[in-house]
Amino acid sequence: IALLVILGVCSLITMSVILLTPAGSDTKLTVEDLFKPEFVAHDPEAKWINDSEVIYRNRDGHVIKFNILTNETEIVLTNTTFVNFNVAKYSVSPDLKYVLFAYDVKQILIHFTFLCLCYCYLMLFFREVWELDPPEVLNSILQYAAWGVQGQQLIYIFENNIYYQSDVKSNSLRLTSSGKEGVIFNGIADWLYEEEILQSHIAHWWSPDGERLAFLVLNDTLVPNMALPRFTGASYPKGKQYPYPKAGQPNPTVKLYVVNLYGPTHTQELTPPDSLKLREHYVAMVSWISKTKTTVRWMNRAQNVSILTVCETTTGACVKEVSELWLSKQNQEPVFSRDGSIFFLTVPVKQGGRGEFHHIAMFTTQFRADQNEVRHLTSGNWEVTKILAYDESNDNIYFLSTEGSPRRRQLFSVKTVGLFPRHCLTCELNKAHCLFFNAEISPNDKHIILHCKVSLIYYSKVVANGYFLCSDLPLKISYPPDFSESRHYGLLLIVDGSPGGQAVSDRFVLDWDSVLVSSDNVIVARLDGRGSGFLGQRVLHEVHRRLGTIEVQDQITAVEYMLTFPYIDRTRIGVFGRGYGAYITLMMLKSTDSLFKCSVAMSPVTDWKLYANCFYDSLTLLWMALLQFSSVLQNVQPLREQTLMLVHGTADANVHFQHTAELIRNLVKVGANYSMQLYPDEGHFLSQRSRQHLFGSLTNFYRECLREEILPLPNDDEEEEEE
Amino acid sequence: IALLVILGVCSLITMSVILLTPAGSDTKLTVEDLFKPEFVAHDPEAKWINDSEVIYRNRDGHVIKFNILTNETEIVLTNTTFVNFNVAKYSVSPDLKYVLFAYDVKQILIHFTFLCLCYCYLMLFFREVWELDPPEVLNSILQYAAWGVQGQQLIYIFENNIYYQSDVKSNSLRLTSSGKEGVIFNGIADWLYEEEILQSHIAHWWSPDGERLAFLVLNDTLVPNMALPRFTGASYPKGKQYPYPKAGQPNPTVKLYVVNLYGPTHTQELTPPDSLKLREHYVAMVSWISKTKTTVRWMNRAQNVSILTVCETTTGACVKEVSELWLSKQNQEPVFSRDGSIFFLTVPVKQGGRGEFHHIAMFTTQFRADQNEVRHLTSGNWEVTKILAYDESNDNIYFLSTEGSPRRRQLFSVKTVGLFPRHCLTCELNKAHCLFFNAEISPNDKHIILHCKVSLIYYSKVVANGYFLCSDLPLKISYPPDFSESRHYGLLLIVDGSPGGQAVSDRFVLDWDSVLVSSDNVIVARLDGRGSGFLGQRVLHEVHRRLGTIEVQDQITAVEYMLTFPYIDRTRIGVFGRGYGAYITLMMLKSTDSLFKCSVAMSPVTDWKLYANCFYDSLTLLWMALLQFSSVLQNVQPLREQTLMLVHGTADANVHFQHTAELIRNLVKVGANYSMQLYPDEGHFLSQRSRQHLFGSLTNFYRECLREEILPLPNDDEEEEEE
Repeated sequence: IALLVILGVCSLITMSVILLTPAGSDTKLTVEDLFKPEFVAHDPEAKWINDSEVIYRNRDGHVIKFNILTNETEIVLTNTTFVNFNVAKYSVSPDLKYVLFAYDVKQILIHFTFLCLCYCYLMLFFREVWELDPPEVLNSILQYAAWGVQGQQLIYIFENNIYYQSDVKSNSLRLTSSGKEGVIFNGIADWLYEEEILQSHIAHWWSPDGERLAFLVLNDTLVPNMALPRFTGASYPKGKQYPYPKAGQPNPTVKLYVVNLYGPTHTQELTPPDSLKLREHYVAMVSWISKTKTTVRWMNRAQNVSILTVCETTTGACVKEVSELWLSKQNQEPVFSRDGSIFFLTVPVKQGGRGEFHHIAMFTTQFRADQNEVRHLTSGNWEVTKILAYDESNDNIYFLSTEGSPRRRQLFSVKTVGLFPRHCLTCELNKAHCLFFNAEISPNDKHIILHCKVSLIYYSKVVANGYFLCSDLPLKISYPPDFSESRHYGLLLIVDGSPGGQAVSDRFVLDWDSVLVSSDNVIVARLDGRGSGFLGQRVLHEVHRRLGTIEVQDQITAVEYMLTFPYIDRTRIGVFGRGYGAYITLMMLKSTDSLFKCSVAMSPVTDWKLYANCFYDSLTLLWMALLQFSSVLQNVQPLREQTLMLVHGTADANVHFQHTAELIRNLVKVGANYSMQLYPDEGHFLSQRSRQHLFGSLTNFYRECLREEILPLPNDDEEEEEE
Repeated sequence: IALLVILGVCSLITMSVILLTPAGSDTKLTVEDLFKPEFVAHDPEAKWINDSEVIYRNRDGHVIKFNILTNETEIVLTNTTFVNFNVAKYSVSPDLKYVLFAYDVKQILIHFTFLCLCYCYLMLFFREVWELDPPEVLNSILQYAAWGVQGQQLIYIFENNIYYQSDVKSNSLRLTSSGKEGVIFNGIADWLYEEEILQSHIAHWWSPDGERLAFLVLNDTLVPNMALPRFTGASYPKGKQYPYPKAGQPNPTVKLYVVNLYGPTHTQELTPPDSLKLREHYVAMVSWISKTKTTVRWMNRAQNVSILTVCETTTGACVKEVSELWLSKQNQEPVFSRDGSIFFLTVPVKQGGRGEFHHIAMFTTQFRADQNEVRHLTSGNWEVTKILAYDESNDNIYFLSTEGSPRRRQLFSVKTVGLFPRHCLTCELNKAHCLFFNAEISPNDKHIILHCKVSLIYYSKVVANGYFLCSDLPLKISYPPDFSESRHYGLLLIVDGSPGGQAVSDRFVLDWDSVLVSSDNVIVARLDGRGSGFLGQRVLHEVHRRLGTIEVQDQITAVEYMLTFPYIDRTRIGVFGRGYGAYITLMMLKSTDSLFKCSVAMSPVTDWKLYANCFYDSLTLLWMALLQFSSVLQNVQPLREQTLMLVHGTADANVHFQHTAELIRNLVKVGANYSMQLYPDEGHFLSQRSRQHLFGSLTNFYRECLREEILPLPNDDEEEEEE
């Protein structure tokens, strides 16, 4: 209530209501429905293979080549091949003559992902199949395999070393030899780089002509190993160890090399800027801008200085282009002109009283001028989320932005000349159902593949999106199909909110909570509190030095706000959080008395000291207050009286089961009640089977907790049918 | 119902009702009560130190020396010493001059028990304290330390080697050097010997004069290691590994040595009987019968042949005395006459139509005759459970037996001459409250310490013991204090029943289920089904070849039988089992439809293939049918609709968490609902804190499940107040 008073002076701004086709309210969504093929949005994974042709997989499972000029289609690969080989992934060679399969995926856990795959390639015209095996090693387990960018170039990674074949029939060439399991990684990411820095396990990059390959060498010698136990699948199950740098521990050292593949191989190191040479640093982004030049972003360990350079790969020299502030999208690839003289990047730009928002800036490189010249092409209280392409012949930049609403992603173009006029290319397209786009532009910038998930399966539901309180924080409320303001409803708050994330958007999602809305008369709410992304830098940065307090306050305030709605039953409020959200959830439970009737914390971070140091470093540096709030484990007494369920996979390589185990020990100490769902040998992302089980458990748990209690009083007027 | 018909032809024999002081039915027992000091029976741990003196610890915590002839008492050690040193265990030296403390117990897990202790010894008269440290090793962690049998003889075990000191101030002598952590064990048991063979971690035995020490050397080189993970207590918690021979795996090899400690040390191996020399075998029992002779029981791996030998320790030669059948109490120590010419042992003896019962047999050793002469001293439909002593001067054998009732243990004497007249020494002693005795006889066989827990804390309760169905199987039913036949009650069945065990006895127990009986109007029942001990060999052996079926049947039949009681509500039946009992519980759930409303399986064995091979070997050999019933994991579909709670410590070194993990994976596959309580880094026996938490969880779970549902119908007559 105190919080409500403080923040309550600010006003509610808008509330828009969208009706999503309430098609017969007697059709109830079930957990089983969510796993039916007809409820899963088909992703064709369409890709440009040249200026006029696209390859994608249709609903029947055939791989199709589609010519956008002639409208002709051709089946490249039939769905039977997928079934026969149990194919998990496929890719077509640049010359379209071969297909590479990953099949019989072995669930062997290497750092974060289940990576180990078997590969084979199939000659498309003769239907011949070869297995891809490292030389002299039978039944080897490959960590990675892929085509290059020209002809039949092949690359694969095995025992942490990179191998190269110029075509499918040539001998393989070993490009590195230092690889050592769990210690030295060539061209592939360790846990830290995969999960926190690159957001990909691929740590190598082809030059546009395929003549050169840039790759990282990560040395984890000094990084302590974390043990992941194993419980099932053998009489004597053996666990795994992998380097995971926790708070206060050294990071892997990183070096960036470029090897030329045509002619005698030669490997050249690209050297970091002088200011970082002798200090711990990260390589956050690598991208080729011409046949011999790359752009590289380097970052210090504290993550408060990042330096964008252009490197000449023949000499290894890297020239600083621009220093950037932390949190300015460390993975963002700048878009260069063909001659490399100018490039485009989104940077935070002050927009009057609303703080900074990310907008497109055009930089002149040092190649052309002594000092960077910067021109801002866009402005406004919205964010550019991605620069897609620079069409030099038409002076056009294509980009995605939140203009119109932070919930949306629309495709825009902006002129790089004159008064920088821009216009929206997708705003009038299927306006009712498509407001959240992704796009891929053809190599010649003439055509665009648009991705947008349109819900063709209607389950009856009312969605309201509101702007909330002083910071204009978006709140998304999902109402049951036959919602009536005169009835009383249980409320479930779903806390997502890791810094920079977004829970309230117009992207199509169908998840376990949809079942509660559709079938159990529960109202589900999500808030993008302070610290969320896509709402400008001010909202994002308000959590600085206040992590674990302000986000908790925002979520609680949102609940207090919704309690003012006459149709919300204040005795039936639940909360769910996962990972970072579970941390917030537990902190909320500790700071409220009996606001929540029941709660679930899934894979919770309970102590930041047990989490990755790169996250911790950045937190402690910018959010000094964190240390005193960092742990859920201190004083768990307030959790005693909560109805709390804990969920965790025991082989979670991201948020270790350790977090939940420590919490349990503390809960046991104070005699707290809790229930739990534990998934043996499952990671941070559960297998489909476990997910289905979890969804059942979650819906049962909240259904039980949030249902209207049938009072024993014989009062017929108030009686409502539940379940 | 089918079962009831088949077995129902047998008749109910007797039902006796004992009233345990219903002292004011408004006093309800709580889980917290169970952990209060006044509810814990004080164990004085009284021991004879000579023919007339006893040492024990009184309720105040002082260690007292008591002279039974003069009635004088003397404080040997005050309770403040215990507090100051945080003493976990103590023992007084044979010459009464020193006390050895185990203090500051470090909870470092070595195989089964938490063994690692710090020791120091205190000179009683001068109050000087020394730390006991292996030579040249500071802050070492000892695995074991104890006094010998004479003067100040000291023995300790460190890094799996035995060290000896002739007195507290002399230098220590290393008796073995082969010790290797987790591989070779000298004088101390590995997991298998501690848990399954010796039932003790001590694997060495003093000769009566203290001049010789017999010890086992266990070599686990070929035994695979099981990993015990660790989750808490460090940033990077490290698990442990220890040898655990599962089904089909090799056992440790065992050798038995005797070392003489006076004069130049000499170590002599005692050789197994020829028939076992070249085969895998166990040493099941070692006991000294004179200054130079030991008796040793050897057993083959299949455990269907055991050979009792007498060994001359000066030469190492062992002479076979008698071959025994499996299950004839492998740990039982024969009681020898002083000259070693005769010995006493309990052996199964046929008692008319009731099958075999264990009775005392007197054997003449081969020392006196070519063939064993055997005379049976006792007979009847009851079992001798322990031979305590042979008083040669009076021709008396003292023993404990179940004569009168299998629930009881009374002390008897029997003459070894004439018509073997016997009489009961304890039957008239405190008849109302003491029916289950243990006893320790003084060295000169003149006095006896009797142990019997008398419940001084009365919580109101009615206990009925009935003999049940055709096999006269004992059933114990605990009724709530204000029990009335006209009301309806929930029923909780507690399944203990590992083969040879006993759940129904007159031994005093106060456990979590007492809370349900006392405070929640739940009726609790325990059945000793076929396979139980102390009911004769026929009942014990009926499970042969039918393990996992007949015991399950018996328990179900018991429930069906109790359902005929008018006061049992058939919609409110719960079941609980732990370890082996949890295996039976899960098998029951699989073979019944909706008999049980809720159930808990704690540390369940879900697949015998994952359990110790020594258990598995004996099962597969004698109970061939086991293989097809061995696994709970096959076809878990019937568990889908059960309300099941699983409980396990993740560091359980006996029944690995693996069992529960495999079960969960199978339950997840079929989408089964279950709840669980997991205790991170806890073993098979939970810490007190976790036990208190568990007791709370269990009582809440069953309280919720077994309480009478208040019907929404406004029918005042039927309404009962719950909770």
